[in-house]
Amino acid sequence: MEPVRVALLGCGVVGSEVARLLREQHDDLAARVGAPLELVGIAVRRPERERPGVDPSLLTADAEDLVRRADVVVEVVGGIEPVRSLLHEAFRHGAGVVTANKMLLAEHGPELFEAARAADVDLYYEAAVAGAIPLIRPLRESLAGDRVRRFLGIVNGTTNYVLDQMDTTGAGFADAVERAQALGYAEADPTADVEGYDAASKAAILASLAFHTRVPGDAVHREGITGVTAADVAAAARLGCVVKLLAIGERVPAGADGGPEGVTVRVHPAFVPRSHPLAGVRGPFNAVFVEAEAAGELMFYGPGAGGTPTAGAVLGDVVAVARHRVHGGRGPGESAYADLPALPMSRVLTRYHVRLEVADRPGVLARVADAFAAHGVSIEQVRQQAVGEGPDRTAELVVVTHVAPDTSLSETVEDLAHLDAVLDVTSVMRVEGE
Amino acid sequence: MEPVRVALLGCGVVGSEVARLLREQHDDLAARVGAPLELVGIAVRRPERERPGVDPSLLTADAEDLVRRADVVVEVVGGIEPVRSLLHEAFRHGAGVVTANKMLLAEHGPELFEAARAADVDLYYEAAVAGAIPLIRPLRESLAGDRVRRFLGIVNGTTNYVLDQMDTTGAGFADAVERAQALGYAEADPTADVEGYDAASKAAILASLAFHTRVPGDAVHREGITGVTAADVAAAARLGCVVKLLAIGERVPAGADGGPEGVTVRVHPAFVPRSHPLAGVRGPFNAVFVEAEAAGELMFYGPGAGGTPTAGAVLGDVVAVARHRVHGGRGPGESAYADLPALPMSRVLTRYHVRLEVADRPGVLARVADAFAAHGVSIEQVRQQAVGEGPDRTAELVVVTHVAPDTSLSETVEDLAHLDAVLDVTSVMRVEGE
Repeated sequence: MEPVRVALLGCGVVGSEVARLLREQHDDLAARVGAPLELVGIAVRRPERERPGVDPSLLTADAEDLVRRADVVVEVVGGIEPVRSLLHEAFRHGAGVVTANKMLLAEHGPELFEAARAADVDLYYEAAVAGAIPLIRPLRESLAGDRVRRFLGIVNGTTNYVLDQMDTTGAGFADAVERAQALGYAEADPTADVEGYDAASKAAILASLAFHTRVPGDAVHREGITGVTAADVAAAARLGCVVKLLAIGERVPAGADGGPEGVTVRVHPAFVPRSHPLAGVRGPFNAVFVEAEAAGELMFYGPGAGGTPTAGAVLGDVVAVARHRVHGGRGPGESAYADLPALPMSRVLTRYHVRLEVADRPGVLARVADAFAAHGVSIEQVRQQAVGEGPDRTAELVVVTHVAPDTSLSETVEDLAHLDAVLDVTSVMRVEGE
Repeated sequence: MEPVRVALLGCGVVGSEVARLLREQHDDLAARVGAPLELVGIAVRRPERERPGVDPSLLTADAEDLVRRADVVVEVVGGIEPVRSLLHEAFRHGAGVVTANKMLLAEHGPELFEAARAADVDLYYEAAVAGAIPLIRPLRESLAGDRVRRFLGIVNGTTNYVLDQMDTTGAGFADAVERAQALGYAEADPTADVEGYDAASKAAILASLAFHTRVPGDAVHREGITGVTAADVAAAARLGCVVKLLAIGERVPAGADGGPEGVTVRVHPAFVPRSHPLAGVRGPFNAVFVEAEAAGELMFYGPGAGGTPTAGAVLGDVVAVARHRVHGGRGPGESAYADLPALPMSRVLTRYHVRLEVADRPGVLARVADAFAAHGVSIEQVRQQAVGEGPDRTAELVVVTHVAPDTSLSETVEDLAHLDAVLDVTSVMRVEGE
């Protein structure tokens, strides 16, 4: 039986695990594919560097040549170039592609899907979102007979670990990030994670799949967790909630005011009730909660990152692409027929939890309530508590709203900040998952 | 574009929903398949009966003729015959098949997979296990590059609802079943659910997929929940556990004593620690927890039954099979290359929670401890408590063991029952998920 030639681009944490699993599970993989998988080379920047467990004769610096010698190209390098050009080269030579590169897909997905389609080969990317959790295939195939209404995901393990530490130990943001770095859950420069860039790329990919439309990475509204304080986490606890960084995609029907049908996609921290299945997702784990018309509520849970889990997901894709080489056929390509616009935050309906420091004198509550009413926002809960003693005494006012358009809520907060009676807006957080 | 002809066998709770979704989502499905799906007929026993929302001209009693007019046959009738013959007829005529029939697959899976392979058509069955939860496709495809070590599943919503009611309300088994029947979660004759037959069929299907081997339904060790008492549920709570009916499959390495490598598959109630993700699966929901070598711990959660969720899962399969008709290719068939034997319960390692009523006199504890030691079972926890007053006073003795072979544990319990000092063995339950 003719072997299927596999080229590996990248030999870092994930790549070296892919190479190991290809070797150690050789017989299993051959049985599942119907032909052996032969690793024909590994493209790295410095092939002369010693890599424990990796056959040095496989290493090459000539990625372009390697790509032309393969039936399946596995890309675990990351970034945009030279990867983007190499994958186009792979398609031109008729190779299928498996990638874990969320940023590339969020920014250049449509052009890559089109190239794969034109070459009649596969482009698989299970490992690009939520590491080892089977999520792309369920969305792209299992739910192909259903209509997804909404997804809520914890898709970044670093921020989930940080928020979890803040919740369970009372640590502040900076301390929790340091702990995450010490454990290898956060990078030395944690910007991509804590500012929500990583989650936003994944949200774009999930939304494109879930709603059969194109959602570019920059259409995702993004807020990170750098502003989340220990006081926010404590306030969440008092409300029976935890703070989670959520990636949320929703299908929005046409508005009564003539606003078009479309999708909203956003990444931001939010209060999630402890009774929601996502609230129990701890530490570096990921989970995505999906609401579909027929299926109802589904949840997918597992490790969101790590070399071995990610490599396992990559290999599942390699088996699928290699099976198609051996037995014919091709997996589903891009499905963007719905062509729904990505709508602005003004079309998002949500609830706000607002904490204010206000002057402790008569009439203040009325002034605050007026500001909400002026934007048509109705209030669900108010709690006022005196802070301090004597003439310096102020009050803390906590307001939880009913559901309202995000823009009305943010404009209300803007107005509150300008009220004389309001000394400080100490925290603003959305409440999701109810 | 030539339509793909779909034949529906059965028009009950699931079938009528399949027909509705085929109609209401016609355009979406056509876009995803690449050709329209045309429902060419619905085979029912009594076509003259009126069915709200179903076009009467589609109804026919001649299932055999209908099958011959279809490209994709959807079977939601259940049972063995005439379904088994009809599906063979479908394969002979080159139609792909989508079925939700767990019993048929557990009993006759290999022969049906072989017929599908010989005809070079698809046999898909996502809805046969855990209703709407994408589980078959993740196991059969996403984890194709990984090695599954174990799965623990709550795959029967009826029993989960009953046990959940017992846990949250303190109800006894009979009362909880009555409530489940009143809500439509249990059938008038609940035997298939409460005796574990339904879960055993699903366990056989999951084990066959997870371990790439054939596990016939009758190789599954099966114990139902009819013996679970309110006292068991209360004892679980005292131990920080809940009682769940679990479907468990494990890959077992060759034994030190020369026992062969293989798989163990079993269905029985067990204590599950409240900290385990499965413990939080409430009411009629299902969830399957999978441990794989590369991926680590995954969980899939969602509604385990219901007409609409099951119909959604069926339609996802219809889209996949129809796509293959239009674009070529075929999904993975049976993967049984590993050819691992199903091993007896003597190869299962587990822990027991045993509650005894014993005479309250010196030496009894020593006698009981001797019985465990005689079978090499080591004890983790013992709790003894006096029951009653005066000469009638007895004692309740609760023993939790360390991990030991199931046979040693059950033999110990057998011996205990014959001890003079033991008045009654009031409860025996395994402890799983730690």
